[in-house]
Amino acid sequence: MPESAPGRFASATAVRRENDARYSATLAEGWDIAGNANGGYLLATLARALRDASGKPDAVSVTAHYLSPGKPGPVDIDATVLKAGKTFTTVTGGMTRDDKMLLHATGTFGDLSSRATTVERVEGAPPQLPPPDECVRVEGTSGFPPPMMNNIDLRMHPDDVGFISGAPHGRAQVRGWFRLLDDEPLDSLGLLLAVDAFPPTAFNAALPVAWTPTVELTAHVRARPEGGWLRCEFTTRFVTGGFLEEDGVVWDDSDRLIAQSRQLALLPRQH
Amino acid sequence: MPESAPGRFASATAVRRENDARYSATLAEGWDIAGNANGGYLLATLARALRDASGKPDAVSVTAHYLSPGKPGPVDIDATVLKAGKTFTTVTGGMTRDDKMLLHATGTFGDLSSRATTVERVEGAPPQLPPPDECVRVEGTSGFPPPMMNNIDLRMHPDDVGFISGAPHGRAQVRGWFRLLDDEPLDSLGLLLAVDAFPPTAFNAALPVAWTPTVELTAHVRARPEGGWLRCEFTTRFVTGGFLEEDGVVWDDSDRLIAQSRQLALLPRQH
Repeated sequence: MPESAPGRFASATAVRRENDARYSATLAEGWDIAGNANGGYLLATLARALRDASGKPDAVSVTAHYLSPGKPGPVDIDATVLKAGKTFTTVTGGMTRDDKMLLHATGTFGDLSSRATTVERVEGAPPQLPPPDECVRVEGTSGFPPPMMNNIDLRMHPDDVGFISGAPHGRAQVRGWFRLLDDEPLDSLGLLLAVDAFPPTAFNAALPVAWTPTVELTAHVRARPEGGWLRCEFTTRFVTGGFLEEDGVVWDDSDRLIAQSRQLALLPRQH
Repeated sequence: MPESAPGRFASATAVRRENDARYSATLAEGWDIAGNANGGYLLATLARALRDASGKPDAVSVTAHYLSPGKPGPVDIDATVLKAGKTFTTVTGGMTRDDKMLLHATGTFGDLSSRATTVERVEGAPPQLPPPDECVRVEGTSGFPPPMMNNIDLRMHPDDVGFISGAPHGRAQVRGWFRLLDDEPLDSLGLLLAVDAFPPTAFNAALPVAWTPTVELTAHVRARPEGGWLRCEFTTRFVTGGFLEEDGVVWDDSDRLIAQSRQLALLPRQH
């Protein structure tokens, strides 16, 4: 049986191992927002190198600090194993271009297929979404929505797209479906893309901002997704001190919670 | 006016700068749980070194990965500035003993007194707590509650202490007051202690666990606390895949949200 070609997400986030502690990669065209690579795309690429260095199959917890915007082109990645354990291995490293660090991340990696699930207690349910075909497919443009939307399949809840036409509903909430294109299977690295792919909650909250740059983003993965579609919901409760958090909850097609994310974002000063 | 002696928290978390990239510290007796230093205490000590290396006054976002337990005694801390900016400086580093890393953290530091607060939107309110004198002061023991409780002033909501006598209320929730002793003022490093000082929510949820070791903890600080008491609330929504999250919300005496925290903790396998 011929090996199938890697999907477009796997190709765009591919890393080359140069040695034990060093990888290289090329940030692809078409995964950017106004010329700069999407944060989730950057994170998935860096995490692919860190995961490789860990020798474990799954990202369990990954935290990234966004330091400089990154345009398409070659980057270097360093990876340092902090602790290699039987259950988890923790790796830290940065993505740099010309000695300028774009992104730094630390991740704990493991094997989610081996995790015990004898005790379960879930307070919450997946967001109620119309079927994907009745949601609004976000199409990429050279401005907003960003070009990356043509490389993923993101369908927003019809109630949450008012901000596009200048009529946000006023709640700091964004809900929708997410999957990779071309039936590319989605693993924990794809989840890292998903948690930063949706429009900011601030747009629906009608906050007077055009952008909310990420300071820090952490994603926790509980299980490998089953099926192609993710049900995603992002909310913000606290806009204060010049910051806002964005909390993501990701469920798979089987209504299982598979990931949580939180990012601290900056409310740019008003001029 | 004579300079006042450093408080017991400042003393216990003091770091000595050896050079640009290296600090030393001594983990103090009495801040442990069953012999191992409390996670928030470890984090505050490491963050004090990283903050010093940043040259900024406040911890804004700090993420820690817990790698090995740490007993009282000397430790080394390395600190690497990833990006020094006008607004924020991001520093990463680890705390080691005998070349074994106990804890690794990455933090973004800044000056919270200068943050714009023109846009505010808060969906939520501080936990409703009886006054501190009507709450339950947790006293340290050599077992549980841990000795650290004698070095802080932690008062739990009377409704949330049932687990101590074997009668948990069944909700994954812990609420209470927190302050440093001897009127020691509390800054963003004290907040890092506070967010890991309360008993696990799992105890009130009546989950069959005696411990829930932390894999990763992130704290976001929105403002410097005003007044001595913090109002704290910790909840868990998702116990699944062998993990649980613990979400903290911290308010100050003026009813301002000043911090959020989230940790991913491990549900030990049942035997």
